[in-house]
Amino acid sequence: MEKKNIASVLPATVDALTKCKLGNVLAECQHDGEPMPSGRVLADVVELVRSIVFPGFFGDAYKDDNTLEYRTGLNIAKVYDLLSEQIHAGLCFANVDGKKERRKMAKAMAVEFVEFLPELRRRLLMDVVATYDGDPAAKSYGEVISCYPAIKAIGNYRMAHKLIEIGAPLIPRIISELAHSETGIDIHPGAQIGDYFTIDHGTGIVIGETCIIGNHVKLYQGVTLGAKSFPVDDAGNPIKGIPRHPILQDNVIVYSNSTILGRVTIGKDAVIGANIWLMEDVAPGTQVVQRKKI
Amino acid sequence: MEKKNIASVLPATVDALTKCKLGNVLAECQHDGEPMPSGRVLADVVELVRSIVFPGFFGDAYKDDNTLEYRTGLNIAKVYDLLSEQIHAGLCFANVDGKKERRKMAKAMAVEFVEFLPELRRRLLMDVVATYDGDPAAKSYGEVISCYPAIKAIGNYRMAHKLIEIGAPLIPRIISELAHSETGIDIHPGAQIGDYFTIDHGTGIVIGETCIIGNHVKLYQGVTLGAKSFPVDDAGNPIKGIPRHPILQDNVIVYSNSTILGRVTIGKDAVIGANIWLMEDVAPGTQVVQRKKI
Amino acid sequence: MEKKNIASVLPATVDALTKCKLGNVLAECQHDGEPMPSGRVLADVVELVRSIVFPGFFGDAYKDDNTLEYRTGLNIAKVYDLLSEQIHAGLCFANVDGKKERRKMAKAMAVEFVEFLPELRRRLLMDVVATYDGDPAAKSYGEVISCYPAIKAIGNYRMAHKLIEIGAPLIPRIISELAHSETGIDIHPGAQIGDYFTIDHGTGIVIGETCIIGNHVKLYQGVTLGAKSFPVDDAGNPIKGIPRHPILQDNVIVYSNSTILGRVTIGKDAVIGANIWLMEDVAPGTQVVQRKKI
Amino acid sequence: MEKKNIASVLPATVDALTKCKLGNVLAECQHDGEPMPSGRVLADVVELVRSIVFPGFFGDAYKDDNTLEYRTGLNIAKVYDLLSEQIHAGLCFANVDGKKERRKMAKAMAVEFVEFLPELRRRLLMDVVATYDGDPAAKSYGEVISCYPAIKAIGNYRMAHKLIEIGAPLIPRIISELAHSETGIDIHPGAQIGDYFTIDHGTGIVIGETCIIGNHVKLYQGVTLGAKSFPVDDAGNPIKGIPRHPILQDNVIVYSNSTILGRVTIGKDAVIGANIWLMEDVAPGTQVVQRKKI
Amino acid sequence: MEKKNIASVLPATVDALTKCKLGNVLAECQHDGEPMPSGRVLADVVELVRSIVFPGFFGDAYKDDNTLEYRTGLNIAKVYDLLSEQIHAGLCFANVDGKKERRKMAKAMAVEFVEFLPELRRRLLMDVVATYDGDPAAKSYGEVISCYPAIKAIGNYRMAHKLIEIGAPLIPRIISELAHSETGIDIHPGAQIGDYFTIDHGTGIVIGETCIIGNHVKLYQGVTLGAKSFPVDDAGNPIKGIPRHPILQDNVIVYSNSTILGRVTIGKDAVIGANIWLMEDVAPGTQVVQRKKI
Amino acid sequence: MEKKNIASVLPATVDALTKCKLGNVLAECQHDGEPMPSGRVLADVVELVRSIVFPGFFGDAYKDDNTLEYRTGLNIAKVYDLLSEQIHAGLCFANVDGKKERRKMAKAMAVEFVEFLPELRRRLLMDVVATYDGDPAAKSYGEVISCYPAIKAIGNYRMAHKLIEIGAPLIPRIISELAHSETGIDIHPGAQIGDYFTIDHGTGIVIGETCIIGNHVKLYQGVTLGAKSFPVDDAGNPIKGIPRHPILQDNVIVYSNSTILGRVTIGKDAVIGANIWLMEDVAPGTQVVQRKKI
Repeated sequence: MEKKNIASVLPATVDALTKCKLGNVLAECQHDGEPMPSGRVLADVVELVRSIVFPGFFGDAYKDDNTLEYRTGLNIAKVYDLLSEQIHAGLCFANVDGKKERRKMAKAMAVEFVEFLPELRRRLLMDVVATYDGDPAAKSYGEVISCYPAIKAIGNYRMAHKLIEIGAPLIPRIISELAHSETGIDIHPGAQIGDYFTIDHGTGIVIGETCIIGNHVKLYQGVTLGAKSFPVDDAGNPIKGIPRHPILQDNVIVYSNSTILGRVTIGKDAVIGANIWLMEDVAPGTQVVQRKKI
Repeated sequence: MEKKNIASVLPATVDALTKCKLGNVLAECQHDGEPMPSGRVLADVVELVRSIVFPGFFGDAYKDDNTLEYRTGLNIAKVYDLLSEQIHAGLCFANVDGKKERRKMAKAMAVEFVEFLPELRRRLLMDVVATYDGDPAAKSYGEVISCYPAIKAIGNYRMAHKLIEIGAPLIPRIISELAHSETGIDIHPGAQIGDYFTIDHGTGIVIGETCIIGNHVKLYQGVTLGAKSFPVDDAGNPIKGIPRHPILQDNVIVYSNSTILGRVTIGKDAVIGANIWLMEDVAPGTQVVQRKKI
Repeated sequence: MEKKNIASVLPATVDALTKCKLGNVLAECQHDGEPMPSGRVLADVVELVRSIVFPGFFGDAYKDDNTLEYRTGLNIAKVYDLLSEQIHAGLCFANVDGKKERRKMAKAMAVEFVEFLPELRRRLLMDVVATYDGDPAAKSYGEVISCYPAIKAIGNYRMAHKLIEIGAPLIPRIISELAHSETGIDIHPGAQIGDYFTIDHGTGIVIGETCIIGNHVKLYQGVTLGAKSFPVDDAGNPIKGIPRHPILQDNVIVYSNSTILGRVTIGKDAVIGANIWLMEDVAPGTQVVQRKKI
Repeated sequence: MEKKNIASVLPATVDALTKCKLGNVLAECQHDGEPMPSGRVLADVVELVRSIVFPGFFGDAYKDDNTLEYRTGLNIAKVYDLLSEQIHAGLCFANVDGKKERRKMAKAMAVEFVEFLPELRRRLLMDVVATYDGDPAAKSYGEVISCYPAIKAIGNYRMAHKLIEIGAPLIPRIISELAHSETGIDIHPGAQIGDYFTIDHGTGIVIGETCIIGNHVKLYQGVTLGAKSFPVDDAGNPIKGIPRHPILQDNVIVYSNSTILGRVTIGKDAVIGANIWLMEDVAPGTQVVQRKKI
Repeated sequence: MEKKNIASVLPATVDALTKCKLGNVLAECQHDGEPMPSGRVLADVVELVRSIVFPGFFGDAYKDDNTLEYRTGLNIAKVYDLLSEQIHAGLCFANVDGKKERRKMAKAMAVEFVEFLPELRRRLLMDVVATYDGDPAAKSYGEVISCYPAIKAIGNYRMAHKLIEIGAPLIPRIISELAHSETGIDIHPGAQIGDYFTIDHGTGIVIGETCIIGNHVKLYQGVTLGAKSFPVDDAGNPIKGIPRHPILQDNVIVYSNSTILGRVTIGKDAVIGANIWLMEDVAPGTQVVQRKKI
Repeated sequence: MEKKNIASVLPATVDALTKCKLGNVLAECQHDGEPMPSGRVLADVVELVRSIVFPGFFGDAYKDDNTLEYRTGLNIAKVYDLLSEQIHAGLCFANVDGKKERRKMAKAMAVEFVEFLPELRRRLLMDVVATYDGDPAAKSYGEVISCYPAIKAIGNYRMAHKLIEIGAPLIPRIISELAHSETGIDIHPGAQIGDYFTIDHGTGIVIGETCIIGNHVKLYQGVTLGAKSFPVDDAGNPIKGIPRHPILQDNVIVYSNSTILGRVTIGKDAVIGANIWLMEDVAPGTQVVQRKKI
């Protein structure tokens, strides 16, 4: 029997992958000839936004009286260019008719995002302060900005959440997954999160799409704010969009690896200990602790 | 006392690192003058395979009637070139005599991998459907492909598992660790996993080398399918290759942060709740839940 | 009402981000005109150190009688150049007066780090042996070096810990966070860790700043060695630098997802099972296991 | 008097260069917001065309049964994309109204250029043969293609001349100047040149816009085929487009550093010696030689 | 006899090239540990200056109301940074004592160059007009800026000449040689050239160090304005710095391949024909033509 | 009539360029599946050699006690790797049977070239001295090395000539054409050139394949040392390899734009003036000058 080699295998494999239909799964979400959203480009957008918001800590723009204005101007212009392209690509996933209309919408959305940048810095600086105040190991605000995955994950969340408010499909999820990959912290951009939010260590945290989180909340690594179960429709498919994740009121702390499931409310000032498994409301001010194991 | 500087320190440090023997640990696994496997190159291979399997979602190949065939052809040829080099480098870790023989084997293995690509797409599309069906937050198949770490981790697993079947040493483990680093999901390429497999969030999941997982199984973040303990030989070293990880039959669901250890069988349709710690068989259809903690 | 476009929005946004004061949070940690530490450059440093310590497994320097010495020499010189710059940038976060003095200190510190490289290899090879011995799935030392996130995380830790000993501010934390992002393993560079240390899988591990870990210790994924609570000063701010994390003596094993909090001592040869939650001392030789859940 | 530094000089210089009007010279040829033609992009186009026409000799496409088709397909698609953009940018220099119309024209022109590629190869191979036959130092056709500046200069000329026929403004001149810079051979794209054309050495050759050159013509380095003088209009400006350069009929040879000026005709089979200065017709078959100098 | 291989040859060759003295020729011009001027960096400087002076025609800065100011600001800042480094490196070739003093001088010189940029644009636009007016083949000012080697060569000359005036050693010569390589036009930066200067085709032109050229002068390809011979000192070495090249007064035209040698004066409005060889003064208004050759 | 677009034109054009035979011209010089020589790679080789020979003036290797040895070692190793590949590719143009034999020959040739590097530096430094001594405008040896195209052209010539001696086909010609493109100086690598050779300005110089040039010779721009005519064989093809270019004995000077054709001998100490046209022997010590033209 003759041995196969690449010369004989290549054309047939190319045919099998291109000549046949791509299948409904792939076909549904591609407008002919229009590019798809790109995780790599969005990673560049995120890096640019970080360098605009925290000049010197990210990117090449640092506090330098001579060129800060020029660098910032150019970086914002790049954010606008790349993001309007990406939003346009993401609109392929929405029911928006007309390439021209999609392009116009995408530009208007990107303008709205650009206007949000000073507010984004203002809010992230509050998160930096909360992180510094909450960790005895933190030596300076600068260390928090440079090193803490919390700031990267929360930063991406606040960008992505804004894009959800603006109405951009798909792009927000890619941005939140970029932070998930980078930090192990998985915050759905649909969640609502207040000011002075902080996370310690963070790996394994999951914050579901319909979570509502107040101000001055702190989460430790491995915390899940998830859904208990979800109703299915007559065809057995999950019904999308129903509130199904926890509400955490102001000043709540949840220690490491605890799991809170379902549309429960953790009241103001409550403290949830480590490794707790919770599916019920917790009254304000309550301290929930695990019984000793040994 | 005189201060040291780099000029005085550099040559001695170079000598200490190169003139002495590299030690048995390093020396055992290097054939003189042959390159070692490279994580960076294998990351390029993975990205190319993703762009072949999901054109438009990854890489620069998108659904475009004009060039899809050319791009696919070239990308497959690149996969073949890079992968046959990497497999060849990996064969240094096996007892294969002769550089020429290793090169020939590596090429044949890479051809076999190329032939697998259409099947890889077929199977991954089933995983995409399973992921979409299982998450109320998912808005489209496209979102699942673009964003969900599950698809990246399962994709790398299916590539790496195929390479294990083909007989390539080391390379499969590097590919699975690339996904581990990217997603926090650690699937050993030796595990056997059925169709319509899905993972939600995923960070912290560990699936051991001898796991057997059926069809339509779903895992949440933080789930460990691990070994309980392992027998050691007379010298006290662990005996390698013994079945020591769980079997999950069809339709099993394991919720977040649960740990299943040892060669136990979780029967068909069983549901394991969150934060469970399990070292025993579970009968088909059973629901295992944690007792309330408060 | 007229529609906004980027031309009208850009100048105002640039002004909002640059013309106003950057605020105390950003301003405190920037010396005018001096660059800040860069995560990207430090990632290059880490990659260079890996290629020096494990030639062939990382970077372009492999065991090749012709050029190993030249590559190693050049790579060390690059480490020195990049690291002395980065340490200098990090000294902005310390109270060191005078640009010239900072530059001199930074160079001396980088020299000290370069001298440590042969010792770093010696210690990491012990960690490689420990990792190989502890995992039945490991096929060779080479596989451990190439693939295991443990080696990357422990390697970054040992670099970063040395830099703490040398007295470099901030840089060690950035290096440990690079490994955290890459592996999901979060080891504070201030921790003290003995020889033959190993980690299996590793995602979600947290090792706090004041931990003390003996020789031959092994940790599984999801283990937290954290602080219970921390005293605050009169102003309500956490008091920094107090010993507040566990001590693990020689030969301790901690299985997956267990949490040990506070300045407790886990005695020699103790084994802590999976999913345990511990806030007390454990006597030498004790086996702590979770009660069955079903 | 205080010393100037960059901080004080930069803003004023930026203002002087941007806030004032750019002047008629610059302003006339820029449509707002539309990019200008780029020499760098056109250099890429030229390199791609060379790799399509002479696979293996230029670019990464070489004669390799497996991928030649894919590489060629992709390279042509890139030529189309880049060239249609560049032609569009060049149309800013013509009086074509409407961005949409310009884009449509540019695409049609680029399609026409793509169709010309097989013909381009056919003609250049004739030039290769002529070059090989005419130089005793040439060892093979391959050497001629790889090394001879004649092939680069004639190749760019044939591309650029086609683009003139197609009606693309400016782009042809940039392409011919790329060859001029690379080879010292300056062929205006408007010239008409027959088959089996060759150039030896070539540096300093000038072939004017309205030259007509037959088949089997050969030129040596430093030859000028220029204009004698040109009529000016009433305002004293040169009248553009008048035939003012020499006609060389079939089989003419012109040796090094000779200068032929004006609309003269050098008849079939004529040979013009080195360092000749000519402003008159030369009858077919004539040998024009310089008188001895010593 | 045994065959040599690279392993045996490499160390001895490295020693031969590094262990021995570098010789007086190399040694004289290197300050220990200080970088040398770099042609590549200066090529970047030239490209940046072109993009500042002719936005849209070179580089990425084009006439775009949104970002022109930012791009220009950043490009000028880059010119300043790179050029001050290069001038500093060039000062190694002058007798300037003290690294600190050299650095200070270099910065002051770079500031002076930055201030010259608006004047540079003003003068080059005059050269553009002269070039357009003098060539019937030129279709627009834009074509002249985009394509004509004259503008590149004259642009580099005007930059380099300014740097001579500022007092920077060596750097001006490198900049003029960059244009020489790019265009075949060799203008010594020490030459003095008036306004509305133009060159047609240009390959082979040589303009010597002590030339003085008036306004509205035009040169064709191959023209040499050289030195006849030069006096030597007692040791037989050429005496440097003596005026030894031609003076061309206003409105002079020199046609292709003519050679003018020595400190002669070509009077106002004189026209020198092609292929002329001249070593004497020419009265104003004279037309010098070659006798017919046939 | 329907308009063509790229989708309809692309496949047919690809077919026309790939499915048909490539023709004898292209086909003769390609071994299946083996790469062709690459001008880009050889340009890298040239740059590396320049950085080895003139450390600090080219490349990143400068006189720096710490790393010069490492950089030089690595640069030589790169030269060896790249050059042995290129020589191997070039051997496709020779009648050498067997891929393995070609590879072995290529490596041995590259070793020989590496051994030549110290001698190359020694000879080029003589050319630098000759250039400095011959130009009153030269301010230092360093300026000559940094700026003078003569050194680049002569350097490439000496590399290429050595490769001819070693027996490498084609590669020498590509290297000499790289210098021709960069400097306008066209020296055939087959020419024999003595020590202390120099060129002033250089654009347009042509030195033919069978030239023999003594020591201390100097040429100015535009000089041609060419063939008068060449005998053809019975088929009308030029007979290759016959001595047909001039011999210049020691101390000869040829001024700008002069042409010397045929196997003539220019005797020791002769001086040939500018714009001379010569086809006869010149006795030693003779001064050949052009008659005045006016």
